[in-house]
Amino acid sequence: MAPNEFPPLPADKAALEEGAVFTPRFDAAGLVTAVVTDAEDGVLLMVAHMNGEALALTLETGIAHYWSRSRNSLWKKGETSGNMQRVVAMKTDCDQDAIWLSVVVGGDRATCHTGRRSCFYRDVALSGAGAILVSDGSEPLFSPHDVYGKS
Amino acid sequence: MAPNEFPPLPADKAALEEGAVFTPRFDAAGLVTAVVTDAEDGVLLMVAHMNGEALALTLETGIAHYWSRSRNSLWKKGETSGNMQRVVAMKTDCDQDAIWLSVVVGGDRATCHTGRRSCFYRDVALSGAGAILVSDGSEPLFSPHDVYGKS
Repeated sequence: MAPNEFPPLPADKAALEEGAVFTPRFDAAGLVTAVVTDAEDGVLLMVAHMNGEALALTLETGIAHYWSRSRNSLWKKGETSGNMQRVVAMKTDCDQDAIWLSVVVGGDRATCHTGRRSCFYRDVALSGAGAILVSDGSEPLFSPHDVYGKS
Repeated sequence: MAPNEFPPLPADKAALEEGAVFTPRFDAAGLVTAVVTDAEDGVLLMVAHMNGEALALTLETGIAHYWSRSRNSLWKKGETSGNMQRVVAMKTDCDQDAIWLSVVVGGDRATCHTGRRSCFYRDVALSGAGAILVSDGSEPLFSPHDVYGKS
């Protein structure tokens, strides 16, 4: 399957929601949302985005690829840090604009660029004046400074 | 806390990633991505979006509110079907552009408008020619026709 070779959206809503044809619904920027959970315990690790090429490469190789919106480039997750993601299962939702990846993380088993296992390491809590963030105690599993340099 | 009264983004990346101030990073359309999992077993139920008002209402009431991009309106999830979502925990990610809600679903305990428990009821699988969708066997827990009418 060559990159971006996904069929066009069906005209029929029933086909989109109940059919067997994978017709990912890319947004105006050409992206679908990817939700990534740990295959072992289901913990939410990250939320990212995929263009057609990233999605096709993920399907072909079994290793998660994304589209980096900040770098505006294809992103083989973990290529620098070693924490690559082997895809165990992939699902899509009713209107096919989101992808759920269940993955096994390699290396230090960290997913967040801060070195933590998950990007979701702060609880949103209500205090008197409004919402605050409270650390859930997650500690870095690798040193971002050592892995990514000073940037 | 009045709707949309969230502080502006910090200029400092360290404050965004390690700070205790909740500064949700809304996109150009004024939305953040919301990932919703079941508080009991962690299953991914849906992916949706929130504007400032939906996020503030969710925090204030403890009941999940979203922004419906298709209807272009505030959306108190489950108001029609009875399957409202009580928020047990809320987290945000490193760059604060995604929210993770852990919820208990009321009513029929269904989240998808197709009547199923989760919107993610089809596996993406590779066949000879490309990717296909395979039902995971999830059955509707309510009748969408009865609840939503014929639309």
